[in-house]
Amino acid sequence: MYENENGSGKGGVRLERDVVVTEVALRDGSHVVAHQFTIEQVKNLTGKLSAAGVPYIEVSHGDGLGGSSLQYGFSKVNDIELVEAAVEVAGESAISVLLIPGIGTIDQLREAADVGAKMARVATHVTEADVSKQHLEAAKHLGMEAIGFLMMSHMASPEKLVEQALLMESYGADAVYVVDSAGAFLPQEVKTRINLLKTNLNIDIGFHAHNNLSLAVANSLVAIEEGANRIDGSIRCLGAGAGNAQTEVLVAVLDRLGIRTDIDLYKMLDLSEEVGNTIMQKPQEITDSSLIMGYSGVYSSFLLHANKAAKKYGVDARDILMELGRQKVVGGQEDTIIEVAKQMALQKEGTLR
Amino acid sequence: MYENENGSGKGGVRLERDVVVTEVALRDGSHVVAHQFTIEQVKNLTGKLSAAGVPYIEVSHGDGLGGSSLQYGFSKVNDIELVEAAVEVAGESAISVLLIPGIGTIDQLREAADVGAKMARVATHVTEADVSKQHLEAAKHLGMEAIGFLMMSHMASPEKLVEQALLMESYGADAVYVVDSAGAFLPQEVKTRINLLKTNLNIDIGFHAHNNLSLAVANSLVAIEEGANRIDGSIRCLGAGAGNAQTEVLVAVLDRLGIRTDIDLYKMLDLSEEVGNTIMQKPQEITDSSLIMGYSGVYSSFLLHANKAAKKYGVDARDILMELGRQKVVGGQEDTIIEVAKQMALQKEGTLR
Repeated sequence: MYENENGSGKGGVRLERDVVVTEVALRDGSHVVAHQFTIEQVKNLTGKLSAAGVPYIEVSHGDGLGGSSLQYGFSKVNDIELVEAAVEVAGESAISVLLIPGIGTIDQLREAADVGAKMARVATHVTEADVSKQHLEAAKHLGMEAIGFLMMSHMASPEKLVEQALLMESYGADAVYVVDSAGAFLPQEVKTRINLLKTNLNIDIGFHAHNNLSLAVANSLVAIEEGANRIDGSIRCLGAGAGNAQTEVLVAVLDRLGIRTDIDLYKMLDLSEEVGNTIMQKPQEITDSSLIMGYSGVYSSFLLHANKAAKKYGVDARDILMELGRQKVVGGQEDTIIEVAKQMALQKEGTLR
Repeated sequence: MYENENGSGKGGVRLERDVVVTEVALRDGSHVVAHQFTIEQVKNLTGKLSAAGVPYIEVSHGDGLGGSSLQYGFSKVNDIELVEAAVEVAGESAISVLLIPGIGTIDQLREAADVGAKMARVATHVTEADVSKQHLEAAKHLGMEAIGFLMMSHMASPEKLVEQALLMESYGADAVYVVDSAGAFLPQEVKTRINLLKTNLNIDIGFHAHNNLSLAVANSLVAIEEGANRIDGSIRCLGAGAGNAQTEVLVAVLDRLGIRTDIDLYKMLDLSEEVGNTIMQKPQEITDSSLIMGYSGVYSSFLLHANKAAKKYGVDARDILMELGRQKVVGGQEDTIIEVAKQMALQKEGTLR
């Protein structure tokens, strides 16, 4: 039922695994702790994740290398120091960094490689793969695994997604990830896309899920069934929005299905409890706001602005988010949010007259 | 793709819905609040669930009518008073009660019917449907919808499950539910079972999911795809173990799929926030203990006893739970738990020598 990709490994961390897990709590989870991870926390988690056999561990600001800023939130400790700390205790695991061109630079990628990062995930909006060319090439040149990471994938048609993934393949990417940033995909939509990518690409396919519609683990299973062999997870769901696919749950479910991750479940359960008790300031539940983000398909950064605009113009923030989703608005376009709210207020006024 | 069961409704609450949702926060969620629901809470939630268009609302002790006891935990307010309070504000919604023969009695069912409960869900272990006969017949006699509720369904083969469901059908049940009490089902297992039931039964099929493997919503979708048209949900997941399929998420996802529940999403989101702020003492996360229960397939009541036995005999509680799952131990068989722990300790000692 499941394809076995044994032996196609790069970098020596693949072993006999059917599915290669990248733990993103120390990157996507950075959003949850307002980018305040300490050296001690990074070392502790990395050491224990490595001991549990997690092959890749991503360490970066939530918005990638260079994300520490007024706009995205300042980190407590800079990325390179955190990466260096992680590398020291990573053992057999490889440390990954995320890079969003425009936020992070090739210089920062070089610094990360210099301190021992082995994998670079170059992230662009799903329709903007062309901006990843230099960065993917730079990663290869630096001797890193180079991964394309197509964010907000649900905004593109399956055909557009394949076109963009092929661009990343042509730039030398070792794998391309379908990234469900808003947690908006339904299982059938994942199935169609991974299937089409598998047919058209010759490199590994990855899937990165968020749990806004409570489908992160299920969508990851569908992706694996269709041939994806790289899956992201986050211990205790630590990540933006409603959080990610929960790593320890993925490990348990894949084990039940006979799909090898070579990750020790009990060690992950111990770490899950520790993370719950020590790192999490609030649980990763599906709240009204994270659900409406998955439902409307907009990114979590819109929420604060939509709430402000809703208050100012006397409309429902959820209606604003739904309209932004329909218009497929991307990035942090506050102007659009205000414009949508204004229009809604005018329409409402017109209806009331 | 999805069957439309329009017009097959009983009791006038079905309307044009494709899927009929029963909200179980005021029954399964009773476990979460140690059975301390007040009249005010039940009225508030029932009124708002009714206003949102939820067709069925279940109100009972977590272990059903008569559950209030030293063994299962005493309720703050007795079941019949809570049911009566709910009925007062239920509007178009029907109030359901759960009854586990052996815990609750036919007298209690009559009392519930007398104060206006419209549906009785008679719950037995998946292999013990025969004990539901009198109670299902009594429910019909009392003019209630009579529903069979096969708990711990994952413990039976698909064929055994069908055999037991057919028994309930023969006793006059209007529907039979596949109940994933331990949150242990994988999607393919749900698919096989619902498909086989749909082929063999002439009554409605229901599905009740728990989220221990993060698959509650996904498994509910699979059940619907295979022909189930009654689905349980719990607002904010309020329920035993890792909680239930989250009702507001189900509503959003089914809406995205074009499957009608006729439930107002925004009203459910408002209620979700209120429940999160006022009723929940702790979030419904998937913790190390709820995950191991879904993984091993044992019921949540085993956990405390397994932890005690683990401490006493110096073994890992998770290994005890896994062994109990392998032995398909049911009910609150503390003797078995201690026996398993003892054997493990002896084996461990033998290995160490």
